[in-house]
Amino acid sequence: MSLSMHVSKMSVRMRGFARYIRLDDALKTILSHVRPVGVETVKFDQALGRVLAEDVVSKVDVPPFDRSAVDGYAVRASDTFRASESKPVRLRMVGSIAIGYPTKLRLRKSEAAKIMTGAPMPTGADAVVMLENTGAVGKKLDVFTSLTPGKNVSTRGEDVEKGDIVLKCGHKLRPQDVGMLGSLSKLYVKVSQSPSVAILATGGELKQPGRKLGKAEITDANSYSLAAAVSNCGGCPKRLGTVRDDKALIKRAILKASRHDMLLLSGGSSVGERDLVPDAIAELGKLLFHGVAIRPGGPTAFGIVKGKPIFALAGFPVASLVAFDMLARPALRAMQGLHADRGYPRVKAKLTRKVSSTLGRADVVRIKLRYASGELLAEPIRITGSSILSSMTDADGFVVVPENMEGFREGAIVEAEIYIPDC
Amino acid sequence: MSLSMHVSKMSVRMRGFARYIRLDDALKTILSHVRPVGVETVKFDQALGRVLAEDVVSKVDVPPFDRSAVDGYAVRASDTFRASESKPVRLRMVGSIAIGYPTKLRLRKSEAAKIMTGAPMPTGADAVVMLENTGAVGKKLDVFTSLTPGKNVSTRGEDVEKGDIVLKCGHKLRPQDVGMLGSLSKLYVKVSQSPSVAILATGGELKQPGRKLGKAEITDANSYSLAAAVSNCGGCPKRLGTVRDDKALIKRAILKASRHDMLLLSGGSSVGERDLVPDAIAELGKLLFHGVAIRPGGPTAFGIVKGKPIFALAGFPVASLVAFDMLARPALRAMQGLHADRGYPRVKAKLTRKVSSTLGRADVVRIKLRYASGELLAEPIRITGSSILSSMTDADGFVVVPENMEGFREGAIVEAEIYIPDC
Repeated sequence: MSLSMHVSKMSVRMRGFARYIRLDDALKTILSHVRPVGVETVKFDQALGRVLAEDVVSKVDVPPFDRSAVDGYAVRASDTFRASESKPVRLRMVGSIAIGYPTKLRLRKSEAAKIMTGAPMPTGADAVVMLENTGAVGKKLDVFTSLTPGKNVSTRGEDVEKGDIVLKCGHKLRPQDVGMLGSLSKLYVKVSQSPSVAILATGGELKQPGRKLGKAEITDANSYSLAAAVSNCGGCPKRLGTVRDDKALIKRAILKASRHDMLLLSGGSSVGERDLVPDAIAELGKLLFHGVAIRPGGPTAFGIVKGKPIFALAGFPVASLVAFDMLARPALRAMQGLHADRGYPRVKAKLTRKVSSTLGRADVVRIKLRYASGELLAEPIRITGSSILSSMTDADGFVVVPENMEGFREGAIVEAEIYIPDC
Repeated sequence: MSLSMHVSKMSVRMRGFARYIRLDDALKTILSHVRPVGVETVKFDQALGRVLAEDVVSKVDVPPFDRSAVDGYAVRASDTFRASESKPVRLRMVGSIAIGYPTKLRLRKSEAAKIMTGAPMPTGADAVVMLENTGAVGKKLDVFTSLTPGKNVSTRGEDVEKGDIVLKCGHKLRPQDVGMLGSLSKLYVKVSQSPSVAILATGGELKQPGRKLGKAEITDANSYSLAAAVSNCGGCPKRLGTVRDDKALIKRAILKASRHDMLLLSGGSSVGERDLVPDAIAELGKLLFHGVAIRPGGPTAFGIVKGKPIFALAGFPVASLVAFDMLARPALRAMQGLHADRGYPRVKAKLTRKVSSTLGRADVVRIKLRYASGELLAEPIRITGSSILSSMTDADGFVVVPENMEGFREGAIVEAEIYIPDC
């Protein structure tokens, strides 16, 4: 190793140590370096959970014709204006209108036609009287109520009019949206591609799940939790296995992985002798920060290699997953055209215990949620080490103590974010 | 048609009309007729979003050995008891411990060994002093702080102990849970099968999306929104197309579909002449109710055919999807071992307008959510007809007005349920 490389390596590390960047600034840096991924076209019935990359503009009216909204009789509203329970109006029945077939029927004054829900309105009719407000006597129909024009008629375009923007670019599609696309005969939609995210775990001590462990070895959990976290926010994870703590190997692996849209490395980002990943990033591209004022997840670095955003996450499972949530998840969402936040549902809840933090650092406190006498309570999880993954499997969500606070008192109403299997 | 069949058919219809069953009672009836689906075994890294069908008991300790939680020096805590910033204790450095390899080092009194985060603790050591609290002078180490036994040591089993129940049966797996399964080397997990749900749309007026519409025809949206809704709560939808309004055809389609775990039919459940689906259910099996005191979605029927739960949903797109949410979704969740509720995240929000309802009927009011000066507001959507699917695509969620209330006043704090693309 040349002296200059050694110096540059030291300075990278020292900078990381000295200046923990604020969470907001870290996010700003990240977001200014990610770009939306490409667009692809998918069939509408395969688009659930995808993010629209176009405004959907209707080319049709829904419904496409005036139709009855109830079972009853199509009438001219004006014929019924004086009708009441005690003084019915008597109309002449002139036909019956079925569903699914156009009708040639024309209603003239004092005429009525039997009609079913969803059947097309006959020409001349402008209202439908419900079955229960009528009495039929042979070809005569008594109407016991007065109707205003349009009553019980579902008019052409009342749901969607041709030219309406029905769903907007950046919207994540839900079941009703998929139904709407069908209803508009919008067979193909443009959606954001799923960002392809390479995941590498570093550390010679890592063994794959199921492998027998040597005396000082541990099982790799990070690459699996990170892969699931990537899927969970719409990304497409590619686990590339583990790499030993060897900078040359790490650099080679990073270069190989840089064809993906984002790279996540776990391990080797703490500020110690094995601080290899940030160094590798600095040597291959640009290291933009190392060390974020959050806990857990402080020893996180971020940079750009071959134009691709690359995160060096801590090796401890909680630290790596929390840092992913706080930093990489908003980026992945932005890359898909979603709002660049964490996107977890938020609820207000009352803390059951005091939570302490440190000024200048954002703390991510895992919590359990429960209802007690109609009140939503958030109970901070006691064991909080970065290595205690059970603190996250036990948790229903988390609360962020912002940098400008030293904690929350017992009983404080806080905003909790909820872990959802898919969201 | 025989007279007795005609009578039975009429009585079915009349009963449906006369007695709208309460939502709670409808749900009770449904849940007493659904059973958990079978169990299957999947690889842990394919299990995100699946529901555990077993308790996961750890067969290992995590971590599997005592290790350092920081970069620093392994020491015997008792050697540091009197150390302070001004009066350091001087120890003898006897080695260095790397990650991933067992160490044969044994610390004796007044000895220290360099150690990295994650490296195994040497025999005799019971604490780690952080780098920044030490000064190294050749083979001598000054320690400027006193340590209690266990300080900065991550002890064997501190995350998970062998025998711990780590994840419980009925839990829907999230990213951290997948990581935990990896960490435990739990390669395969038992999860509930995805209930297979057959979906049939009835009505001769229905055309598939993309097909040219005749004058009185409409595009089928229901079978697509229902299929997406089934996926959205863990089911596996099978769209079986559309069936004409012909009871014999409907009965044949139902029988064919009864190999699935659940059947959803849309259309033909309103109480009119084309009331074919409830009749078909009554003739093939048992019709348990017809008509629920909810809006939209009132004309919903439920029964059992060949042991399988079958829902006759209304033909209007909002009515069918809301009735699915209120009735079929809890059932599908129960079939997977989840809590038999709707499972949407709930938030408290303030109504921006009065909402009126009718005593004795539960109203599902679609809302938009927005923040205004830190307060979450729920704005009821004005257009609410059962046929207006845009009232659901515009909505962020919904509020249920219970049967015993005539509505909510403007400014009332209500509990809103949020539509999430996948949850």
